[in-house]
Amino acid sequence: MSLIVQKFGGTSVGTIERIGQVADKVARFRAEGHDVVVVVSAMSGETNRLLGLAHEILDEPVPRELDALLATGEQVTTALLAMALHKRGLSARSYAGHQVRILTDDAHTKARIREIDDARLHADLAAGRVVVVAGFQGVDEQGNITTLGRGGSDTTAVALAAALKADECQIYTDVDGVYTTDPRVVDGARRLDRITFEEMLEMASMGSKVLQIRAVEFAGKYQVPLRVLHSFQDGPGTLITLEEEHQMETPTIAGIAFNRDEAKLTILGVPDMPGVAHRILGPIGDANIEVDVIVQNVADDNTTDFTFTVGRGDLARAEAILKEIADELGAREVRSDSRIAKVSVVGVGMRSHAGVASQMFAALAGVGINIQMITTSEIKISVIIEEKFLELAVRALHSSFGLDGEPREEGAA
Amino acid sequence: MSLIVQKFGGTSVGTIERIGQVADKVARFRAEGHDVVVVVSAMSGETNRLLGLAHEILDEPVPRELDALLATGEQVTTALLAMALHKRGLSARSYAGHQVRILTDDAHTKARIREIDDARLHADLAAGRVVVVAGFQGVDEQGNITTLGRGGSDTTAVALAAALKADECQIYTDVDGVYTTDPRVVDGARRLDRITFEEMLEMASMGSKVLQIRAVEFAGKYQVPLRVLHSFQDGPGTLITLEEEHQMETPTIAGIAFNRDEAKLTILGVPDMPGVAHRILGPIGDANIEVDVIVQNVADDNTTDFTFTVGRGDLARAEAILKEIADELGAREVRSDSRIAKVSVVGVGMRSHAGVASQMFAALAGVGINIQMITTSEIKISVIIEEKFLELAVRALHSSFGLDGEPREEGAA
Repeated sequence: MSLIVQKFGGTSVGTIERIGQVADKVARFRAEGHDVVVVVSAMSGETNRLLGLAHEILDEPVPRELDALLATGEQVTTALLAMALHKRGLSARSYAGHQVRILTDDAHTKARIREIDDARLHADLAAGRVVVVAGFQGVDEQGNITTLGRGGSDTTAVALAAALKADECQIYTDVDGVYTTDPRVVDGARRLDRITFEEMLEMASMGSKVLQIRAVEFAGKYQVPLRVLHSFQDGPGTLITLEEEHQMETPTIAGIAFNRDEAKLTILGVPDMPGVAHRILGPIGDANIEVDVIVQNVADDNTTDFTFTVGRGDLARAEAILKEIADELGAREVRSDSRIAKVSVVGVGMRSHAGVASQMFAALAGVGINIQMITTSEIKISVIIEEKFLELAVRALHSSFGLDGEPREEGAA
Repeated sequence: MSLIVQKFGGTSVGTIERIGQVADKVARFRAEGHDVVVVVSAMSGETNRLLGLAHEILDEPVPRELDALLATGEQVTTALLAMALHKRGLSARSYAGHQVRILTDDAHTKARIREIDDARLHADLAAGRVVVVAGFQGVDEQGNITTLGRGGSDTTAVALAAALKADECQIYTDVDGVYTTDPRVVDGARRLDRITFEEMLEMASMGSKVLQIRAVEFAGKYQVPLRVLHSFQDGPGTLITLEEEHQMETPTIAGIAFNRDEAKLTILGVPDMPGVAHRILGPIGDANIEVDVIVQNVADDNTTDFTFTVGRGDLARAEAILKEIADELGAREVRSDSRIAKVSVVGVGMRSHAGVASQMFAALAGVGINIQMITTSEIKISVIIEEKFLELAVRALHSSFGLDGEPREEGAA
C-alpha cells in the first residue's frame, strides 16, 4: 500500500461526466489499497469565465480580488469530485487551499508555496478518506487567498506529495507520457518509460505542454517521483525520477527537443572590450525580454560579433533596443532573423559519453543542414538552424541516436 | 458619521452592470462620510447553477460538500464588487465567511452563527476601507465551510451589524419598504416608515417576501435597527425598530397580513379527555407537518371538535394521519377544506387599545363575511375565512383601521 497524489487538470474535470470518470479512476486506486490525495483544477472554461467577469469591470483587476475570484473555480471542482466519490461509496473530503492550509507568500496571482500543514490530510487518510484538494491556490500569513499562477495545480500536487512524503505524484494529462520527440514531427517518436528531472527540464520545449516546469523543478528539489499519465487511457505513462535510479545502461540520449518560437539578433563589429556583453544584454533584460542562446565570436580586427536569440514576440522591441546600443557602442550593424529554429539533443548520458556533439553535427551535415549557432550544457546540445529544416533535423537526429523503435526502458512500476 | 451594514441580494448583483450600480450606491454613502460594510449574495442564477451541477451527481448531495460548493457563489460576488469599488477609487477588501471569520455550528446547509470575529473588519474600516463580506456562509470550529440556508445573507448582514455595533443594517430588495398590506390587493396600501420587530414578525406572510424571518428575529434580539430599501430606487424605505422608540401616538394597527397557503382539518366528535390535543397533534408533528391555527371547542355531549390549519401542500398527508387518529380515538368524522384563507390585523398598539377585535369582526360582518376560526396573540388577531372573500376582507379591514392614505409616521431617518 502506498500514498499517491493524483492531479487532474481542467479538461479532465471539464464536465460532470468526466468528474465521474476521475472518481472511477480514484476508486480503482483505492480498491488496490492505495491512499489517495487528489488535486484538481477548475473545470475547463471556468477560469476564463471568471476572468471575463473581472475584465468587464477592470482591465487590470486588483490582484488580491482576482485571486479570491479565481480560487472559487477549483473549490467548485473539489466539492463536485468529493460528491462523485461519495456516490461510489468512498469517504471523501474536499479542501480549499486555506483549509489544508497551503501557506504561500503574499505575491497575489503568482504566489509561492512556503509551507503545507499536513495534519488534517494525514488524519483523513488515516480514517480511510480520499482527500480532494483545490490546486492553484493557497493563503498568505494574513489569511488572504492567493493563487500560484496558471498551471499552478501541478505545483500544488508536487508540493503536497513532498509534504505528505507520497510514494508517487501522478499528473494526469491529455498525453500518455513524455515522448522522445514530438510525434507530429517524427512518426517513430516513442513514449519514454522514464526520464530524469534534469532531462525533463531540458526537454522543456516539449515538456511545457505536458508539465509545468516549476512543478518539475519542485519535484526534483524534493525528490518526489513524478509520473505523467493520460487521464482517460490506461498505461504506465512516463516516470520522472532521480538520475541515480536508472544510471545503468542508460542510453545516451533521452529525446530531441525543438522550439520554433525564437528569433535571432546579431550585432556585428562591436569594439571588443570588457563589459561589452553586459552593455548589450543589460538593456534587453531591463526591458523584461528573455534571452535564450547567446554566442560571441572574436573577430580579427579587435571587434566582436555578438548573437543571441529571443522569443519571436519580443523581436521588434529587442531589435529597437539593440539598434540604440549599437549606435552607442559604435558597432557596425544589427541583423535580425525570425526564420530560425532551435533543435536540441537531451540526455543525462552525454555526461559520460564523448562524441554526442560530433554525432549530432554529423547527422545534420548528412542531410545538408547548416548550423548557425551552437550552445551546450551538461546534458543538452542545442543548435540554431534555418526554420525550414526543422522537421528534417529532428527526424535525422531521432534516427541517428537510435530513438526510433521501442521505449528505451521497459517495466516501469 | 455612522457605520452602516448594507446587504444586496442576488438580483441586485445579478450582472456586472448591477454590481456597478451597487458600487455607485456604496460610493455615495462613503462620500457622505459613513463607514460601510457590504454583504452580498451570489449573482442571481449562480446558486441554482451550482445546485444543478451537484444534482447531476447526487439526488441528495453530501451536505459538507454542498456547502463548499455553494459558498463559492458569494465569494465570486464579493471579489467582483471589491473590484468595482476599486474602479471608483475606493479602497475595498472582500472576505469569505471563513476569512472574517464567521463561526457557525456544524449543521451543514442550515448552520447557525455562533460568533463573529470583528477584528479584521474594524481594522479595515479604521483604514478607510469598504469591507465586502460573503453572505450566507461561515466556517465551523473544525474549519469546514458551512452555509446558513437560503436567504441566509440577510442573517449574515444582521449578525455583522450586531457584532460591529453598526448604526443601521440596510437590506436592499426589490420593494421600497414594508406595506400596510399587499398593494396588489389594496390600491390604498401604503409604505410604512416604521414598524416594530414584533409587528414585522407577525406580518410574516407579507414580510417573508421582503426579509428572512430569522434575520428579523436576530435583529430584534440584538436590537439592530433594520431598514428595508429598494436596490435601485431612492427612498427612505421602512425602518424596523424597537417598540419603545415610537410608542407615543402610535396608531393601533400597523397592517393587514394574509395567507392563502393554508388548509383546514377538523376532527369532529372526539371524546373529551385529557391529552386529546397531544394525541391528535403529536403524530402530525412527528410527520414534520407544521400546524398554524389551532382551535378546540367543547360540545355538549362530552365530545370535542378540534380544528387546525396546515400548509396546503401538507393537507393530503395530514388528512391521512388524522383519519387513523380518528379511528383510534373513536371520533365521529374528519373534514378538510383547502379553500380557506387567513387574514390578520397586526399592531403593537392593540395591547393598550381595547376594541380592536370587535372592530375587526364588525368590519368583516359589514361586508357579509362569515368567520370560521379566530385566534389571537398579543399583537395580532387572525381569522380564517372562505378563500373567495380574502380580497374583500383585506380591503374592508385596511379601510376600517384607517390605513388607506398617508404613511402612519413621517420623517424617518
